Amino acid sequence: MQSIDGKTICQIGIVVRDLAKSRAAWADLLGFEVPPVIETADQSHTGAEHRGRPTDARAKLVLFNLGPITLELIQPVGEPSTWSEHLAQHGESVHHLAFHVDAIDGEKSALEQRHLQLVQRRHFPGGGYAYFEGRGELGCDIELLETDH
Amino acid sequence: MQSIDGKTICQIGIVVRDLAKSRAAWADLLGFEVPPVIETADQSHTGAEHRGRPTDARAKLVLFNLGPITLELIQPVGEPSTWSEHLAQHGESVHHLAFHVDAIDGEKSALEQRHLQLVQRRHFPGGGYAYFEGRGELGCDIELLETDH
Repeated sequence: MQSIDGKTICQIGIVVRDLAKSRAAWADLLGFEVPPVIETADQSHTGAEHRGRPTDARAKLVLFNLGPITLELIQPVGEPSTWSEHLAQHGESVHHLAFHVDAIDGEKSALEQRHLQLVQRRHFPGGGYAYFEGRGELGCDIELLETDH
Repeated sequence: MQSIDGKTICQIGIVVRDLAKSRAAWADLLGFEVPPVIETADQSHTGAEHRGRPTDARAKLVLFNLGPITLELIQPVGEPSTWSEHLAQHGESVHHLAFHVDAIDGEKSALEQRHLQLVQRRHFPGGGYAYFEGRGELGCDIELLETDH
């Protein structure tokens, strides 16, 4: 069966309540300068879909580039989103592990064959993301991340 | 202030309830053969300390080598341990991110200066580990991992 064979984890995503506090704590721990906050979209409609329906929910992000892997801090903005659900259900904690893929649509069916449910996706210029629910036996959600760089 | 500057994440640790089920799910997802189960110690006394007191609690482990990073699945065996506490409080989920260090004792004070509390440690032939509680603003525990290879 097809799998995300040969791909390694490119990102660890942590949902946090207070991005300013969390980025300061991680920067201090890692010996990094405090990175800028990235707003995922400055328009009200991002084109994101959550459980098959459009959502205007967004996130504020901070990225720490740790070489082969990026640590992503995510503060949910608005609802509904996989991030706001995670924060409500599990508190500040690791939300997903991401795998870089060439084409989400090519990998999506392999995950669905494993009964992983698509929970949220978005196309953006140059790529997109798709989250699959993996809590339970995998212990975290799985993100497929498609970017042109 | 001293930090774990320049070190990258070498391991993602996920606490699971049923190691057989979780390793099969991850192996299937990653396109790996199912890895063997590692017992952390076959003797009853591992020398581990949990919250400053000796504990005989152990874990069964499965490791997926993903190049720069290792995915570690951990099924707690016995109590008390940071793993059994995590499973009881948070369910199957990411427990820690680990950083490889040359000497735990050299880095320990840097983490304690950040008010991260040492929760569990163990020396073993050729190295050791130390876990610091980081739930809340960091979103996961931090492990310092010292090995001679």
